[in-house]
Order: sequence, then structure tokens, then C-alpha cells
Amino acid sequence: MPKVFQAHLLGNIAALAQIGALSGGGCARLALTDEDKAGRDLVTGWMKELGLDVRIDAIGNVIGLRAGRESVAPIMTGSHIDTVRTGGRYDGNYGVLAGLEVVRALNEAGITTRRPIAVAFFTNEEGARFQPDMMGSLVYAGGLGLNEAYAASDKDGVSVGDELRRIGYLGAARPGVLKPHAFLELHIEQGPILDEEKVQIGVVESVQGISWTEYTVSGVSNHAGTTPMRLRRDAGYLAASVNLFARKLAWEMGGHQVATVGALSLRPNLINVVPNRAVFAVDLRNTDEEKLKHAEAKVAAHIAEVAEAERVEVEAKTLARFEPVIFEPGLVDRVEHHAQALGLSTRRMPSGAGHDAQMMQRLCPTAMIFVPSVEGLSHNVKEHTEQADLMAGAQVLMNLMLELAEK
Amino acid sequence: MPKVFQAHLLGNIAALAQIGALSGGGCARLALTDEDKAGRDLVTGWMKELGLDVRIDAIGNVIGLRAGRESVAPIMTGSHIDTVRTGGRYDGNYGVLAGLEVVRALNEAGITTRRPIAVAFFTNEEGARFQPDMMGSLVYAGGLGLNEAYAASDKDGVSVGDELRRIGYLGAARPGVLKPHAFLELHIEQGPILDEEKVQIGVVESVQGISWTEYTVSGVSNHAGTTPMRLRRDAGYLAASVNLFARKLAWEMGGHQVATVGALSLRPNLINVVPNRAVFAVDLRNTDEEKLKHAEAKVAAHIAEVAEAERVEVEAKTLARFEPVIFEPGLVDRVEHHAQALGLSTRRMPSGAGHDAQMMQRLCPTAMIFVPSVEGLSHNVKEHTEQADLMAGAQVLMNLMLELAEK
Repeated sequence: MPKVFQAHLLGNIAALAQIGALSGGGCARLALTDEDKAGRDLVTGWMKELGLDVRIDAIGNVIGLRAGRESVAPIMTGSHIDTVRTGGRYDGNYGVLAGLEVVRALNEAGITTRRPIAVAFFTNEEGARFQPDMMGSLVYAGGLGLNEAYAASDKDGVSVGDELRRIGYLGAARPGVLKPHAFLELHIEQGPILDEEKVQIGVVESVQGISWTEYTVSGVSNHAGTTPMRLRRDAGYLAASVNLFARKLAWEMGGHQVATVGALSLRPNLINVVPNRAVFAVDLRNTDEEKLKHAEAKVAAHIAEVAEAERVEVEAKTLARFEPVIFEPGLVDRVEHHAQALGLSTRRMPSGAGHDAQMMQRLCPTAMIFVPSVEGLSHNVKEHTEQADLMAGAQVLMNLMLELAEK
Repeated sequence: MPKVFQAHLLGNIAALAQIGALSGGGCARLALTDEDKAGRDLVTGWMKELGLDVRIDAIGNVIGLRAGRESVAPIMTGSHIDTVRTGGRYDGNYGVLAGLEVVRALNEAGITTRRPIAVAFFTNEEGARFQPDMMGSLVYAGGLGLNEAYAASDKDGVSVGDELRRIGYLGAARPGVLKPHAFLELHIEQGPILDEEKVQIGVVESVQGISWTEYTVSGVSNHAGTTPMRLRRDAGYLAASVNLFARKLAWEMGGHQVATVGALSLRPNLINVVPNRAVFAVDLRNTDEEKLKHAEAKVAAHIAEVAEAERVEVEAKTLARFEPVIFEPGLVDRVEHHAQALGLSTRRMPSGAGHDAQMMQRLCPTAMIFVPSVEGLSHNVKEHTEQADLMAGAQVLMNLMLELAEK
């Protein structure tokens, strides 16, 4: 079995991290900026050096194709190379560059697989500049129209379509026209579980469903000293109550349920004034759609109850709602098989974050491979994965792609 | 008994409200600004028209003195004419202008009292531009040195000393040199109690003690999707927990205990990131120092408990701490007596807000008279008090001053 070259993988990760480099080790390559273009140019150059047939589609997804013995659907791997504003060097980049190392290893070993091999990077996975996130893969899987994607604008009013044209990545290929036989995504966990449990490979069975709701609470602004407790209509109190309720609910439901109140602002936000307005968001996630619905209903009921008691008005707005995605069970089994065959410890788990793979599952059998993130840090310049873990993940990807490419 | 003239009192309130007028009926005359100077000039002019001997002291307090039959300590009334940024027209101004109407009524009736009568307005009561608030009366009562007061700077680095000089209100008189025999402050309630209970006069027995503590919580920023509940160190959770705890504590303690979390900010304040930092403030007030200490201890213990369970660090900083102030009981009785003698309904109550009178109680027997604030609104352009209530309060002040001035 060919082996992935450590020096190349680590060297390429380091080289790509120089573009948009931030002190501390991270990088900033927001989608379709000059930095993103420079990163794209670098990786596309590497694809060509490896002999791949590079295709750019109409949403800027880049696919490097390695011909097979037969002209059939390829085995595709990939991820993204855009980052958030204070991103790490592994998120997305690792999966794309590991895919190139699979190609290099096959080249070096002189192997031509039955099926073609494809390595892709998708446009604007992070959603840090343009919404929605996972845009390139969503368009690729048919979930979003090109015109709608082109029209998405950043906070300065610059559109995806204009930026694709400006940086030279508005390609001719129709997104999704190359339909893979299977898709695999190798990614850092972006969470603490593998690191905490000292497990080497995460066998990703699913992506959690996401429910984001923003609540705007209108109460009455009153003097904190002169207003008796019984006469208050405190918008901030409701927000605090939901924080505690959602936390308790997640603990009680257990399993993969998580609940977070991460964003909250009060008005007038003065120490001695009862807040007349609170805007806050609740992030609920579960791998099970019914349980996620249950959590949503419980939170909504709590809010209704507190709002009535506190005599405040609450408006709810859904910011995002995705059902859980279940990856192809047969393919998930093969991830586990290959990891264990390499003597690696494994753990089945859902992904708590969104990934391009969840869009590709709409199009073809898909699975994901996770490697540990030290202390779970991600979207952070301190994001780190140990070299041995990077190599282990890449080798699992390699072995599985080789198996699938012969089927 | 002379009567306060309605047309003069209401006319002067309306005229003063034209300076720094805001749409909606309020005004902005932050301390020692050009607007404050214009307000001071107007009121000082009225003092002179009424024949008062106007004295400006070294912290900019203005005292208009009406001679008595004897050269003894005067009966003083007063308040302030500075406002918050979106202030109402009654807060402070009402008490000062009602004091002028007492003088006018005595002038019209040709009465010379035994004791002199003094009407004062104190510098920077609001503290909206310079801290501490109640600055002028605090200096007057000997609680703050002149140099320290002069050094206080606004957010642009402009100092009280420079501004007093600039607007021409750095006077020669030593603050506090004119020590009153008694001090009375007539003020709007700034709270909802009198309005809700349809009571005409609030007989103010005390000012609540105030405890302001700012807490800075340091947790760990984590992905809201990938971080299991058990691994979170959520700074925002602690803040929410304190909000609910403080609320419950105030209800359980009952009486005059109030508790408010009005200011809170989270970092990074993103919907899908567990907050690694929360800064929030707790405002606790009680008329009883022992009970206030009990509330402080309870909140501190709750914070310590949650911080340990959540594995977050908490720093506490005292922003303000004033013990409750008890007004002169004999004088408080006389407020009640004169209100009831005029057929007005009364209610004994503490003041939940701070007032110049609480500083003056350090210097001489002091009491306050409250009139209703419609819906309790204050520090708000919609601040309102009905004309009949304004007149009733001024007449109580008049009658009590006349009694005291003969003693």
C-alpha cells in the first residue's frame, strides 16, 4: 500500500499558511479576497504539478482530476481553503492538501486506479464573508442556484459574482456535472472529544442538525433603584432565564444535544437601568431531528411562559435551520475498518460543525474522517493538530480511496 | 399662608427646558457644557430678579440667599439643573424652580422670615459626564476635596476644573461655608410607586444604600456545535445565573431590596461560540445596611459556587458603595404633617435614586418631598408629572420652609 509523504503534507500546509498569515500561526483568507486568490493559485499550481486536470466551475469550486483506467464516476475527496478572519491553518486546508498527497503517493507508486480520483476545494465554506456558508458545495449539490449565490454580498455590498470574476475564478464548468461515485472529507474535529479521550481517528456518522433562532425581547426601561421588583418588565431577565433553561435542557436530554447562548446584547446596557430590550440567539444542535424539534419546542414554551409572567414581548426569527445529515453507513464502516487496520484507535461520533461533506451527501455516498484538535481549539490562530495525527488521517483517506477507486 | 404661583412655576420649568431641548419634551444639559452654562445663566438671572444675593462657590454650586430678620443659619432648599444625555425636564429642575417660587410667594406677601431662605443648585448631580455623581453637594458637605473634584475628567479628558473656569462658574465662595439650619429637597419620584398607588406626596424617610459591583468572567471560547456540555467553561452562563439568582434573592428578601443586572457584554458575542468573557454589573440596593450586606454576601457566594462548577475565573470590582442615608426623623414628620394639612394623600417611602439631599444630611437636618412620576419614567424625554402634583409638592415645600424659617 503506498504511503503518504510526511514532508510534502506538512510542507504544503505550512506553505499555504504563509498566505494571509497571522501572528500566532493562523491565517486570514476570507472567501474571494486577494488572499483567497493567492491561496487558490498556489494549490491549483500544485494540482497541475501533480498532473491533475484542473477544472474550475461557475461557483469557483476547483477540481483536480486524475484519470482512471475506466471512464466512470470518480472517487472524490476535498474540503475548502478559505478561512475565517482569525482562522487556523488546518481547518479545510488539511483535507484538500491530504487529497493531493493521495495523488502524489499514487503517482510515485505508479498506480492507475480503476476509477478516476478527484481532489476538490469548494468556494466559501466558512461563510465568514458571504452567506450562506458551505456555498460552493451547496451549489455543487444542487441546493442553491447560481444566480442566488452570485447575488450574495458582503457587508460592503460586494457580491460573490463580482469577486469571482475579479479574482479570475468564475469558471466555465457547470457545478455538479462531475458526479462522484463517493465523496470523502478529511478534517480536523474542531472540538475537544478526540483530544480529551486520546483517540486517533473520529469515524463521523452524521452532522448535527442546527437550529439558530434570534429573539428580540421588548420590556420597559426603568430605574434600577426606584422600580420595585414586582413592577419590572426586564428584557434581560428573559434572556438570562433562557440561557439557564437551554443549558439544563441539554443536560437533561443528554446524548448529542447541545445548547448555547453565545450572542446577547442589552439596551440601554447601563448598570442602573432595567433593560428594555434584549436581543439574543439560541443555538440548538442534535443528530436526531425529532430530538432537535423537541428541544426547539421546549425552549419556545419556556420563552412564552417567562414572557407572559414578565409582561415582555418576544419576536423570534429563524436564522438557520438544517436537519441532521446521516452519512452513508457502508462508507462510514469502511472508514472505521481502514483506521483500525492501521492500528489506530477510533470513535464513532457526529460532527458538531457544518462541512462541505454534508452537502455532498445529497449527491453521492459520503463519509468523513476526523483527526484530533488539540484542546478542541478551532477558528483560532492556536488551532493545532499533532503531526502524527495529521499523517494518520491522511493514510486512512489514502487507503479508503484506493479501495473505493478499484470497486 | 402664601400660595405658590402656578403660572410662574410651570412657565419657568418650560423656559428652562428650552435650553438643550430634545424632541419629545426632554433636554440634554450635561454638567458644565455650554447648555449647562446657558441653563445656569437663566436660573441665576431669575434669582437676581427675585432679589436674591447670588453666591457661586468653588465647585460651581449656586446659592441664592434671601435675608431673614436675624443673621442665623438659613433654611435651604435646592437640587440640580444638569441633566443626563436624554433627560426629562423635571428631574432636579423642578426642585430648584419650586424653591424660587417659595421666594416669589414670600416677596409678594411681603414676608420676612426669622431665618434667611436659601435656594441652591448643585454642580453635576447626574454624573453623566463627570464622576462621581452628586459631586457639588458632596463637596459642599465635605465628602470630596476640591482638587479631587477638579481633576475628574470626561471621556475626552476635559476636567471639571477647566470646564468650571471656561463657563465662568468657578466661584470664590468656599463650599459648605454657608451651613443651613435645615435642608429640604423637592423632587420627582423617578419611580412608579406614587403613580401606581395614586398617592400625591411621597414622604421620603431615607435613601437606599447602593452597591455596584462589576464582574469580569473569564471562561474558554469554544465551538457551540462541537463542544459537549460537560466540557464547557461558559462565561455567559455565569452572568445569566447571577441575573436569576439576584432576582430571586430580591424577591425572597422582600421589603426595599432590589437587584438588577442592567449591563452585560459577552465576547466574542457570536451565536455559535461559547463566550470566553462576560462583563456584567450587579446593582443591589436596600434601605437597611445589614440587609444590603447580606445581599452582597449572598450574590458573592453564588458567584463563587457557579465559578467553581463552571471552572471560570471571576474578578470583582466595586464601582460604587454607599450606605443607606436616614433623613432627620423630626423633619420627615413635618413633611408628612404639612402634606396632610393640605389634604394631600401621603406615603412614607425610601428614595431608590441618589439625590443631593443625601449629601446634605451629613451637614444638617435634611428631608425630601416626592411627587409622582407618570409611569415612573425618568432619565427619559417622556418624564412627566401632572401640573396639580407639581403645585402640590411646591406648596408643601413652601409651608414647611415657612414653619422652619420662623423657628
